[in-house]
Amino acid sequence: MASEDFRTLWLLPDDPEVVQIIDQRRLPHEYIIHDLRHWSDGVEAINDMYVRGAPLIGATAAWSLYLAAVCGKSPLDEVRRAADALLKSRPTAVNLRWAVDRVMDLVENTTGDDLAHLIRAEAEAICTEDIEICLGIGRHGLTLLEEISQRKNGAVNVLTHCNAGALATINWGTATAPIYLARQAGLDVHVWVDETRPRNQGSRLTAWELAQNGVPHTLIVDNAGGHLMQIGQVDIVITGTDRTARNGDVCNKIGTYLKALAAFDNDIPFYVALPSTTIDWTTHSGADIPIEERGPEEVSKTARPETRIANPAFDVTPARLVTGLITECGICEASAEGLAGLFPERAAG
Amino acid sequence: MASEDFRTLWLLPDDPEVVQIIDQRRLPHEYIIHDLRHWSDGVEAINDMYVRGAPLIGATAAWSLYLAAVCGKSPLDEVRRAADALLKSRPTAVNLRWAVDRVMDLVENTTGDDLAHLIRAEAEAICTEDIEICLGIGRHGLTLLEEISQRKNGAVNVLTHCNAGALATINWGTATAPIYLARQAGLDVHVWVDETRPRNQGSRLTAWELAQNGVPHTLIVDNAGGHLMQIGQVDIVITGTDRTARNGDVCNKIGTYLKALAAFDNDIPFYVALPSTTIDWTTHSGADIPIEERGPEEVSKTARPETRIANPAFDVTPARLVTGLITECGICEASAEGLAGLFPERAAG
Repeated sequence: MASEDFRTLWLLPDDPEVVQIIDQRRLPHEYIIHDLRHWSDGVEAINDMYVRGAPLIGATAAWSLYLAAVCGKSPLDEVRRAADALLKSRPTAVNLRWAVDRVMDLVENTTGDDLAHLIRAEAEAICTEDIEICLGIGRHGLTLLEEISQRKNGAVNVLTHCNAGALATINWGTATAPIYLARQAGLDVHVWVDETRPRNQGSRLTAWELAQNGVPHTLIVDNAGGHLMQIGQVDIVITGTDRTARNGDVCNKIGTYLKALAAFDNDIPFYVALPSTTIDWTTHSGADIPIEERGPEEVSKTARPETRIANPAFDVTPARLVTGLITECGICEASAEGLAGLFPERAAG
Repeated sequence: MASEDFRTLWLLPDDPEVVQIIDQRRLPHEYIIHDLRHWSDGVEAINDMYVRGAPLIGATAAWSLYLAAVCGKSPLDEVRRAADALLKSRPTAVNLRWAVDRVMDLVENTTGDDLAHLIRAEAEAICTEDIEICLGIGRHGLTLLEEISQRKNGAVNVLTHCNAGALATINWGTATAPIYLARQAGLDVHVWVDETRPRNQGSRLTAWELAQNGVPHTLIVDNAGGHLMQIGQVDIVITGTDRTARNGDVCNKIGTYLKALAAFDNDIPFYVALPSTTIDWTTHSGADIPIEERGPEEVSKTARPETRIANPAFDVTPARLVTGLITECGICEASAEGLAGLFPERAAG
């Protein structure tokens, strides 16, 4: 992992009609490879969170469309059916729609070609591009860690929430890419890992992948980050995002907003690392982003019947609390102007 | 519970050398009564959190001193030994020191009296006063809920963190007393219950006692409260406190600070309910309060060896984020002036 040969998703070499993924629900206790043989396996993998993380969800959706093309009698109908089902599997992740739209645009506007071949090439391109994007984010984010390292003694303390790591992408991660590149560059880096209730992506996934890569880290409950910032133990916060509105509002895992408030209150830089594919140019502000409500069993399997449970999975961090957005094209202010400066064509589109 | 006959701690009627408590570690799945027969059982009960909550810790300490007086050969030596051990059992709770000092002042300044009789009467007085204090907090806090109820349709939505309930006191609770009195007064109240990692006092204790009393409530992860405030689902936050500094800074369960930041950011009143015994007049600001670091096993029993765990148990909410302090003597601003207005003699002392 965080080396050139790691992947979170690949085509089985001996049987190119099988896509393999890591069943991330079983980490860190078991490392289980799961086969996707039908597009509905891909829908299940996304919906039940075998895979999660915006970029990996997008890539899994693209490969699921490939499975639809190879497994059906009427490939085009099957691909269209799969696209509909995939779009409904997770409502918040904009990458899901982006990846499905990208493949379907090609499918609907190409004639005569072998559909499976066409989609396979596009799904492979999505994965290759994702790796390049994460490395780009890493290189830009690295400059922030280097700046902090130059003006302080001891480790640069990064706090992160949820898993925006290699496991959320094809490789390297978004929020973690600067950390991995900093380690490679010999910087002294230490990561505070938010547990990230209710699904514990921090303790299960981020701690696991940091440990795999020998990055010093400390697991904390989600409640602890504010206190650590108050006592000077956090130099920078870097999180991922599932969707960024064109005004710079950031939708990410529930609880991100609370960490942004604490960072702002303690003059600690709060950065969000994102592939530009997670910018939703059609969404003007965070208030327009639908927030997925997930099942109560994620919070407690043992609550008494009198106890109702609510489980919103994401929140919106207003752009005013975000120091900057780290993208593959550079770092910009979290604002319409900042984003338009880096992506003038898409902002104008 | 939240009725006149409920108690969290009592003397066994058939054997007045046994103090009984509820083993709160077993709630909500089991309701187990635990016997304290020796003062060291009291130390264990406080240290291992059979009992928790500032007022109940104080009362348990007082009763433990009584057990020292009845069980030892040299009662005075035994009581002094118990006092030393009790003071070391939990460092943050100012009530612990308050209760021990109160009993020991009496012990050291009284001669000729039966020591056990003397301490028993004082421990009983501490419990009786605690019940009156909670009811006082409840009556003052009720006015806040009534005001909200008068200007909105539907339920008054209160968010609370940790358990500052009947289970944290002898009866009624601090943060919950206004809620129980509001229910008795026929107000439509609904409580958002923070799970409160790592020990889950919210899901285990607050949800349990609200359910016992028929108070509508919804369990949420600690990450969710900010989002609920952003979308208008929280009318008021009420928490307890383990120690309040004389400038109004509030030390409470880890994560309280994050909720105060979110309430402030969304113009939602943030109140702290406290017996005046938890005001530490010798502490000038929250920065002077030592923060207890508890064991890593509370956060995760299954972390890999490469994953370090930090577990600070409390944080400090600066007075500037606190709308007001609800005490048994009335509601005041969270400031040196506010506290001095309600408690002129103690502030001057």
